[in-house]
Amino acid sequence: MSEDITLTLEEAESLSLTVLQHNGYSQAHAEAITRSVLAAQRDECHSHGLYRLIGCVSTAQNGGVDTHALPEIIDQAPSVVRVDAHRGCSLLSFEMGKKQLVEKANQTGIAALAINNCFHFSALWPEVEALSSEGLVGIAMTPTHAFVAPAGGNAPLLGTNPIAFSWPRPGETPYTFDFATSVVARGEIELHKRAGKMIPDDWAMDDKGEPTTDPAAALAGAMRTFGGYKGSALSTMIALLAGPLIGDVLGHETQAANAEKTGKPFHGELIIALSPKVFLGEHAAHHLQHAEVLFDSILGQGARLPSQRRFIAREHSLRHGVTLPKALVDELKALTH
Amino acid sequence: MSEDITLTLEEAESLSLTVLQHNGYSQAHAEAITRSVLAAQRDECHSHGLYRLIGCVSTAQNGGVDTHALPEIIDQAPSVVRVDAHRGCSLLSFEMGKKQLVEKANQTGIAALAINNCFHFSALWPEVEALSSEGLVGIAMTPTHAFVAPAGGNAPLLGTNPIAFSWPRPGETPYTFDFATSVVARGEIELHKRAGKMIPDDWAMDDKGEPTTDPAAALAGAMRTFGGYKGSALSTMIALLAGPLIGDVLGHETQAANAEKTGKPFHGELIIALSPKVFLGEHAAHHLQHAEVLFDSILGQGARLPSQRRFIAREHSLRHGVTLPKALVDELKALTH
Repeated sequence: MSEDITLTLEEAESLSLTVLQHNGYSQAHAEAITRSVLAAQRDECHSHGLYRLIGCVSTAQNGGVDTHALPEIIDQAPSVVRVDAHRGCSLLSFEMGKKQLVEKANQTGIAALAINNCFHFSALWPEVEALSSEGLVGIAMTPTHAFVAPAGGNAPLLGTNPIAFSWPRPGETPYTFDFATSVVARGEIELHKRAGKMIPDDWAMDDKGEPTTDPAAALAGAMRTFGGYKGSALSTMIALLAGPLIGDVLGHETQAANAEKTGKPFHGELIIALSPKVFLGEHAAHHLQHAEVLFDSILGQGARLPSQRRFIAREHSLRHGVTLPKALVDELKALTH
Repeated sequence: MSEDITLTLEEAESLSLTVLQHNGYSQAHAEAITRSVLAAQRDECHSHGLYRLIGCVSTAQNGGVDTHALPEIIDQAPSVVRVDAHRGCSLLSFEMGKKQLVEKANQTGIAALAINNCFHFSALWPEVEALSSEGLVGIAMTPTHAFVAPAGGNAPLLGTNPIAFSWPRPGETPYTFDFATSVVARGEIELHKRAGKMIPDDWAMDDKGEPTTDPAAALAGAMRTFGGYKGSALSTMIALLAGPLIGDVLGHETQAANAEKTGKPFHGELIIALSPKVFLGEHAAHHLQHAEVLFDSILGQGARLPSQRRFIAREHSLRHGVTLPKALVDELKALTH
C-alpha cells in the first residue's frame, strides 16, 4: 500500500519554488511554473501536478531549456501578440503575453497570442481559465511529440494535439474542457503495459500499421486520433494553427528541437480570446445568462459538464490542502539539496 | 434504374436562378444561393447541391424566410463585423459581410463575422474556401436543429453543429474539412430506415435514452456526438460560440423560430478568419510552404486529405458539367412555371 501525505497549498507552493530555483530556474520562471503545477495539483490533475517538476528538473539538467530565458513580447498587430520564449518554458511567456492578449480582445473583439520557441509540458486549462476569469472566452491549442497517425495512415505524424476551451459563467465555475485529440492519453497505454493488460484494438496500431491490443506494440507504433477521420482533421487543424500559422514547428519536428532528445516538447502554442462584451455590447450579460440554459439542460439530463470533477476537487483542496504519494514528496525534497 | 441527366454549369446556374426568382427570391438572394448550391453540385456534394432548392422554395412558400431581406452590416469592432440577416437566407449575409471580414483580418490578424437571424441550409466549406482563396485561414461553425444528445445524456439538446476549416495551400486546392459533430449525418439514419436496415448501436438512442439499432427509434430519440465526450464538448463549444457569443439562439431553440415549424433552421453563424501574412510578415510564404510537409506526409502514408474526392469531382464538373437524377431536374423545372 502506498503511503500518502497531505500538504497545505502554501507548503506545496514552497516545495515547488524551492525545487525549481535550486535546480536553476529563475524566480520568474519558478513562480510561473509553480502557479501551473499547483493549480493542477489543487484540482487533482495528478499527472500535470507537482509530479511534472521532476521533468522540469531533468530538462533543465540536460540543458534543453533556458531556465533564465526572458520572454520577448512582440506587438505584432492590433489583434495579435507574439511572445518569443527564447527556449524558456511556455508558462512565463503566457503570463507575460496574457495582459496584451486581454487588452487586445477587449478592444477588437477577438485576439490571438502566439508563443514560439517554448518548452511546453503543462495542461492548457489553467490558461483558458485565466481568460474566462477575465470575462473572455478562451481557446488554446498546441502540438506535441508525434505519437499519432492520421486517419487512414499507418505511422506517427501528428502530435496528441490538445485543445482547451473555457467559457465564463456568471457566478459559477467556467465551462471548461481540455482534451488531447488522440483517442487516449499516451500514459493510459503505458499504464496498461505496466499492469500487463491488453488495450482495446481501436486505440493504436503497431509499427506495421496493423491494429494491436498489445500496449508495447502500440507504444512502438502509433496511436489513433479520437473520433476517426473527424478527430484526425481536427488534430491536423491544431497542427497547422499552432504550427505554421505562428511560424513554429509541426508535431513530427518537436523531438529534434532538443539535441539531447530528452527534454520536454519544444514547439509553439496558440491562444485565442473572444470578448462577449465587444461582440454584444450592452446585451452581453443577457446572452451569457442565456447560455446557462444549455448547461442546465445538460445537467438536467444527468450528464456532466467537462470539468465538474476538477472543480469539486478544487473546493476540497482549498479547504484541506493537497494529498500526494509520500514517495513523490520525498523525491521532490531530494531535489532541493 | 434511375435516369440521369447532365447539365452544363451554365445550364445548372440558370435553372437555379429561375427556380429561386420564380418563387419569390430577390435577385441578390437568388444569386447568392445559386453560387452555394452550384459549388456543391460541381463538387458532387449532392445533398447540398441543387436538391436544396426544393427546400428553399418550400421555406419561401411557408413564409418562414424573407426572400427580399436586405442584410444589415454592423461594423461592431476593429475585429468583429456583424450582419443581421433580417430573417433572410444566410448566404447573401455571408457574401456581404465577407468583404469587411477579409479587410479586418488583413488589418488586425484575426477577425470574426457573426451572422444573426438567418435561415441556414448550406454547406460551410464554400464559405471557408472563400476565405482561403484570399490567402486567409477560415473557420466556420453553426448550430442546427437539436437532434443530438450530449455525452452522458439521454435526449436531444445539441444541434448536429458542423465545423469547417480551410487552409490556403500555395498553388494547390486548400486543405478543407467540414463535418457535423454528430456521429453521422441524420440523413444516413433516414437512408437506413428507408432501406429497412439496422444501424450500429453507437449512433443513437431511443426516446428512453437506451441504445438502439432501429433507425425509426433513433429518429424519434437522439443521435450521439462523434468521438464520445470529446465530440460532445466540441459540439457544446460550437453551440456557445455560434449562439450566445453572437447573441443568437441555442440548438434546441432553432425549431421554434419558425412559427410554422416547417422552414429551414433559423439561427446564427460564426466565421473566423486568420491572416498568416499578419501573423508572420515576410516569413509567411516560408511557413505556408512548410505546412506542405504535413500534407505530403499524410498522403505519403496512403491517407487522404479531407476534401480530395470533392476536388477531383470539381475538376470533372468544370470540364464535363454536372450530372443529376432526371427526376430532380424535372421537379426543379416544374417549380419554374
